[in-house]
Amino acid sequence: MVTCQQETPDPHNLADELIFFVNGKKVIEKNADPKMTLLPYLRRKLRLTGTKLGCGEGGCGACTVMISRYCTFQQKILHYAVNACLAPLCSLHSASVTTVEGIGSTKTRLHPIQERIAKSHGSQCGFCTPGIVMSLYALLRSTPQHSMEEIEDAFQGNLCRCTGYRPILQGFRTFARDGCCGKTGKGCCMEVTEENQAPTSSALFDPSDFRPLDQTQEPIFPPELLLGRDTPRRQLVFKGEDVTWYQPSDLSDLLNLKAQYPNAKLVVGNTEVGIEIKFKNMLYPVIIAPCWVAELNAVEHTEEGIRFGAACSLTTLGDVLQKAVSDLPPYKTEVFRAVLEQLRWFAGQQIRNVAAIGGNIMTASPISDLNPVFMASGSKLHIISNEMKRTVQMDENFFTGYRKNVLKPHEILLSVEIPFSEKQEYFSAYKQASRREDDIAIVTSGMKVVFQPDSHQVEKIQLSYGGMAPVTIMAKDTCTALIGREWNDHLLQEACRLLAKEMSLSPGAPGGMVEYRQTLTLSFFFKFYLTVLKKLEMDLSGNNNFHESVLPEYESATELFHKPPTSSVQLFQEVPAGQDPEDFVGRPIMHLAAMKQATGEAVYCDDIPHYENELYLALITSTKAHAKIISIDRSQAEAAPGFVCFLSAKDVPGSNITGIRNDEQIFAEDTVTCVGHIIGAIVADTQEHAQHAAKTVKITYEELEPIITIQDAIDKQSFFLPVKKIANGDIEKGFQEADHTLEGEIYIGGQEHFYLETNCCIAVPKGEDGEMELFASTQNTTETQHLAAHALGVPANRIVVRVKRMGGGFGGKESRSVLLSTAVAVAAYRDGSPCEMHAGQR
Amino acid sequence: MVTCQQETPDPHNLADELIFFVNGKKVIEKNADPKMTLLPYLRRKLRLTGTKLGCGEGGCGACTVMISRYCTFQQKILHYAVNACLAPLCSLHSASVTTVEGIGSTKTRLHPIQERIAKSHGSQCGFCTPGIVMSLYALLRSTPQHSMEEIEDAFQGNLCRCTGYRPILQGFRTFARDGCCGKTGKGCCMEVTEENQAPTSSALFDPSDFRPLDQTQEPIFPPELLLGRDTPRRQLVFKGEDVTWYQPSDLSDLLNLKAQYPNAKLVVGNTEVGIEIKFKNMLYPVIIAPCWVAELNAVEHTEEGIRFGAACSLTTLGDVLQKAVSDLPPYKTEVFRAVLEQLRWFAGQQIRNVAAIGGNIMTASPISDLNPVFMASGSKLHIISNEMKRTVQMDENFFTGYRKNVLKPHEILLSVEIPFSEKQEYFSAYKQASRREDDIAIVTSGMKVVFQPDSHQVEKIQLSYGGMAPVTIMAKDTCTALIGREWNDHLLQEACRLLAKEMSLSPGAPGGMVEYRQTLTLSFFFKFYLTVLKKLEMDLSGNNNFHESVLPEYESATELFHKPPTSSVQLFQEVPAGQDPEDFVGRPIMHLAAMKQATGEAVYCDDIPHYENELYLALITSTKAHAKIISIDRSQAEAAPGFVCFLSAKDVPGSNITGIRNDEQIFAEDTVTCVGHIIGAIVADTQEHAQHAAKTVKITYEELEPIITIQDAIDKQSFFLPVKKIANGDIEKGFQEADHTLEGEIYIGGQEHFYLETNCCIAVPKGEDGEMELFASTQNTTETQHLAAHALGVPANRIVVRVKRMGGGFGGKESRSVLLSTAVAVAAYRDGSPCEMHAGQR
Repeated sequence: MVTCQQETPDPHNLADELIFFVNGKKVIEKNADPKMTLLPYLRRKLRLTGTKLGCGEGGCGACTVMISRYCTFQQKILHYAVNACLAPLCSLHSASVTTVEGIGSTKTRLHPIQERIAKSHGSQCGFCTPGIVMSLYALLRSTPQHSMEEIEDAFQGNLCRCTGYRPILQGFRTFARDGCCGKTGKGCCMEVTEENQAPTSSALFDPSDFRPLDQTQEPIFPPELLLGRDTPRRQLVFKGEDVTWYQPSDLSDLLNLKAQYPNAKLVVGNTEVGIEIKFKNMLYPVIIAPCWVAELNAVEHTEEGIRFGAACSLTTLGDVLQKAVSDLPPYKTEVFRAVLEQLRWFAGQQIRNVAAIGGNIMTASPISDLNPVFMASGSKLHIISNEMKRTVQMDENFFTGYRKNVLKPHEILLSVEIPFSEKQEYFSAYKQASRREDDIAIVTSGMKVVFQPDSHQVEKIQLSYGGMAPVTIMAKDTCTALIGREWNDHLLQEACRLLAKEMSLSPGAPGGMVEYRQTLTLSFFFKFYLTVLKKLEMDLSGNNNFHESVLPEYESATELFHKPPTSSVQLFQEVPAGQDPEDFVGRPIMHLAAMKQATGEAVYCDDIPHYENELYLALITSTKAHAKIISIDRSQAEAAPGFVCFLSAKDVPGSNITGIRNDEQIFAEDTVTCVGHIIGAIVADTQEHAQHAAKTVKITYEELEPIITIQDAIDKQSFFLPVKKIANGDIEKGFQEADHTLEGEIYIGGQEHFYLETNCCIAVPKGEDGEMELFASTQNTTETQHLAAHALGVPANRIVVRVKRMGGGFGGKESRSVLLSTAVAVAAYRDGSPCEMHAGQR
Repeated sequence: MVTCQQETPDPHNLADELIFFVNGKKVIEKNADPKMTLLPYLRRKLRLTGTKLGCGEGGCGACTVMISRYCTFQQKILHYAVNACLAPLCSLHSASVTTVEGIGSTKTRLHPIQERIAKSHGSQCGFCTPGIVMSLYALLRSTPQHSMEEIEDAFQGNLCRCTGYRPILQGFRTFARDGCCGKTGKGCCMEVTEENQAPTSSALFDPSDFRPLDQTQEPIFPPELLLGRDTPRRQLVFKGEDVTWYQPSDLSDLLNLKAQYPNAKLVVGNTEVGIEIKFKNMLYPVIIAPCWVAELNAVEHTEEGIRFGAACSLTTLGDVLQKAVSDLPPYKTEVFRAVLEQLRWFAGQQIRNVAAIGGNIMTASPISDLNPVFMASGSKLHIISNEMKRTVQMDENFFTGYRKNVLKPHEILLSVEIPFSEKQEYFSAYKQASRREDDIAIVTSGMKVVFQPDSHQVEKIQLSYGGMAPVTIMAKDTCTALIGREWNDHLLQEACRLLAKEMSLSPGAPGGMVEYRQTLTLSFFFKFYLTVLKKLEMDLSGNNNFHESVLPEYESATELFHKPPTSSVQLFQEVPAGQDPEDFVGRPIMHLAAMKQATGEAVYCDDIPHYENELYLALITSTKAHAKIISIDRSQAEAAPGFVCFLSAKDVPGSNITGIRNDEQIFAEDTVTCVGHIIGAIVADTQEHAQHAAKTVKITYEELEPIITIQDAIDKQSFFLPVKKIANGDIEKGFQEADHTLEGEIYIGGQEHFYLETNCCIAVPKGEDGEMELFASTQNTTETQHLAAHALGVPANRIVVRVKRMGGGFGGKESRSVLLSTAVAVAAYRDGSPCEMHAGQR
């Protein structure tokens, strides 16, 4: 673990009580752990397991809950969706949390959102359902009236793998002010009009049966929190095993703390620090939460632009800029509109609701969506410490190295000032990612050009890129060379030549896809060129010197991307008229558990109550594709807190040979043949301890030549035997006699199964004769049973495997889940205690 | 709860670490709870569930474990059996505990004791087996060679309900130095010799197959404890929620503590205080354990007798007196022999191993087995405080009232001096209980007579009784009247007349059985008369004035009771010669799980690992036989620690009507019809909290006339309908035509089912559709399922009932276990958390 500072907080400072509300019930936590996020607290401590753990890093939305707070800066109650997997427990003081269990239940009444997602067949495996329900709930809780586009955008941060979203949207369309009637019959926009077909329908439900959305029926904001809104604040302190959380009362308190703990991290949304702690093994002994500091949460309109407190959320940033764009003349809001365009694709709604504008700047993210915009636009940064204030422009000198900037340790970023644009100034921003929404960029860019008055001669140009270096960079040489040039094809050619030179990457540059990234720098400029050209066409329409125009075939490159409205329907053949209403054959039938899935009552493997003496397993896997294991040093793990035992091949009581084809090992004996090959496991008293200890195990490898590609495998004649083929008759003769012979090759890439519910298994030894109950998220109960029995050396009838449901599998939980459940069975057999493994970071 | 003192201990005193060993592993407990006994610590904390909870009061022996200690007073390692249900956890500092798991396992090797009890069919339901194994283990661990009588005596404190003990003894006879060969064939003492029978056998096993007992294979005493034996001691303090435990380093430390906390209880074996805390709701905030005080553990031979430190165990008392009886002339040891005879029947071995000689004296037990002996013999008590020392004789003035004696609060009993008897002195002691061994007395007595030298004229007589008054008493009037009388029939007549008068009881005297107890006072004297007569016959054989003699038919009354050696065998018909060895029909077959039962691996209902969020239920039952419920005051319970909810009839989600005949209620609605009728239940976070809160619920009744006897029921025509009869043909005609008609009545009393494993049920709600898994100790899984479903209002297929085995049932777990499991199911359904009920005090 990487510990980032030396100071330890004053041990005489007693910890405060964390007080918040969950589903209307007051929660007083005397030992709030600064390292804990809301998700495990809800799931484990409060036993509210409707909120699911998917990715653990704010990417899938399965853990979405609604936070409500009285905002003293805006003087109103805010309701917003957040990822519980990232929200630090300690950040919830005076907040009200609403989970999927808090809005409806099959035992009382379903919330209309729950009812409609269920009845529209929008819940299949159901693992994403509670998160989707809560994303929409948070949207509708503030304002019940929204357009279909807004409703769709509310799910940017929610992934679903079963439904393709269509049935979800079909159900939720009934909430949209511009949604269709939902009747899908005559005259409805979704009416099936094709002629000459068997009678088909897309009517999964009758919307007139739905319970109406009624704001008066929603749980109220806890009155106690409203009463306390004006109470003067005093510093809060929460202490954990190795981390202390300070919530300063005001700016001077904050600056003093920062002076006292210069290496402390300021945390607002925890969307970066949370990931570092969970996935990068970082430890920050002191966390400072500036959420009460007015100056860091203020929005101020200045002469030159708008100044945002560094802790303002991206959602606030978007709302303020959106209003400015409506209110101000367009030429002043070129930069604002570029920021808004970037915000559309900046993570998901849940992240934007909590991530601070200052976050990417202070973490000096090299692939930030906004930093290139701030840099190209010449945004100003106001910096403060308890000694001085200063203002710097975010230019090419601001970032001093990978994850570094010019701020001194005791300084903090106070605010970011985004400038109005001038007349003759044009600004655009670009982002390319593998997936448009909710994805990390490959390359991002901010581009500004200022022309001489009433001309198309470049006065100044600033091209900034993210994803092309360890820091956000400016294409200085290119920009300098373009000054004074006219905005035409020659400039385009020259710019591309210069950019290709300036933005080159070495073949092994971190981030991969070197050629693609280089191409993107030019493509973005090409789009910028065309967009500016189009704007010049309009602005200089009276200028006789300007004759350029965008070719019609390039027109689309100047437009912002807008999804077409989703309108696809699923058609099914209707049952014959007069079919007995109790005869369900041929009718669309809602998933049996859809309603329980929508209310969070449906129990998945990790939702089973834990045993008191349950142990946790964490795997130690290969970091090499092909290597001999020379040594395993587990000394640090053995000294780690909560360590119970280390498992490797020789701890398997039965056979270490496993796999459906009997060609795998539970734990690698000498050689690993892929990255992720299981070498051993740590068993500990908590999942956190097990995962921590597993990270400390050091494997020494002797690397062997790996087989990475299909071509490698063909070259080395390395095949899965027997080779499978479909052959019938005399093949050779057939080909010889054929009139035509078509030859060719196809390549099929790998496909991530990407079930939202990660692998999970609980093995409960029964204490007698090797009897064991395995609760697993598996598609293959039989092999789970047989391979566990084989590993333990007991007859298969001693092993009971129970699967209630899975949060997705898609074939990925056929043979691969069994490797994990077998290791868990070995651990439980060895220790005699129930043992759990959950492949995820809580 | 009754709190017995006001002082609260000094909060600045930090608690010590409790360090002891269990099965060779060092255990360091930082938060040793003075109220906790060893049993729940083993079962819950260390998950060693082989040690069973039966009665919870040291009466059944199911919780027997072996304690080993280095005794600084005797300068050797002592191994002895104790009841883990009574042994305070805090008393184990520097001790080594061996449980049934520590001596053998089916996974490694069975201990010979485990093997032989299993193979001799000595383990049936198996619940008593680990305790019986450990009782014998403790005996053999000290000395491997014992007589069969000693082996049998080792189980005085162990109850078994299935086997009738015979097969256990048949197996264990193979360990006795006077045991038979075990071959039960030709020439064996157990050979079946009856002629003209089908070939029968009693040979359950072939003893030559048994693994031999090998002392060198036993786990050694932890060397660390031996190394520390001479370390100077300092006071130990253990602090619990509401009780503090002091273990003073020496006498002056003890006396200072007693001066500081005059109401503190001194605890040695916890065989009285433990019962008071568990069953009588007593709370002693300060406990002082004098086990390190040399003076309280010393044995000293004086001019007048032997002086025992008050903390000496009854086993030590017995050992020392036994030696004195061997070494001294018989006339000096009349009292000693009486004490030894009482000790034979004083509880069981496990209790005698820990109970202190001073215990009954200081608790002023009115039914003590030894107090009448000490009183009649004129034993002396040495008393000490940090101000003074004094000596009192234990006479009729020593006990000043029920559970009171002459000691002042800051004084302690230092030692008890039991006198040698004189020439012309005769002493006997008597005890009558429902069961000879391991039972509380109905009446006890100590009787001493001193004759004029060389005559049969009474110089002094002292008759003391327990069980006849709130204190141990002396029959003063009778004794005074008999002085000077000759020991003959006239004296006997006169004594009986006087005793009948002096030892009369009012009809409602506490303890019941008034006539029987009065009769016993005379019967004991009659036996004493005869016994003394017999001794006089021998001692005065040369005296011509003495002509009395014991009639042959009374002779047996003068003899001490000795069980005949157990020699019964179970005969079974042998299989025909030549039967296929794999054909098991007709052969005696060991219980399938006998070996696991003998090693403690067999899992009973309460041995299942607990869930993290498990709740506990305690019942509130009627104290009236027939009454209307006027009101239920649960206010105190609701304020009690850990309280979750109160349940009564209106909390039943389905139907409150229950029972196999549909004529019972889960919770009484208005009227109770028996003592123990379930009225409600408390659900809390721990069993202790639930049981504590349940005791605080106050029910107000309006009493109705009860039906207690069969005759009452006949008089009131109160029958279970339909009346069951077996009738065939024309009954009346049959009787009319019969040659003879025999008429009569039979009465059958009630029979306690007395399964050792008390009722236990765990209900695990599955969170969906009322699905629930019930783990119950029941003989009737079907009704458990149906009545739970009926109570919850769900289809029966939602309820799964799982029974692995029971620790006895005998019909008592047919319909009666279901009343409890149904209440538990209601609680689990209501709270959504697993809920357990265990009818016993841990």
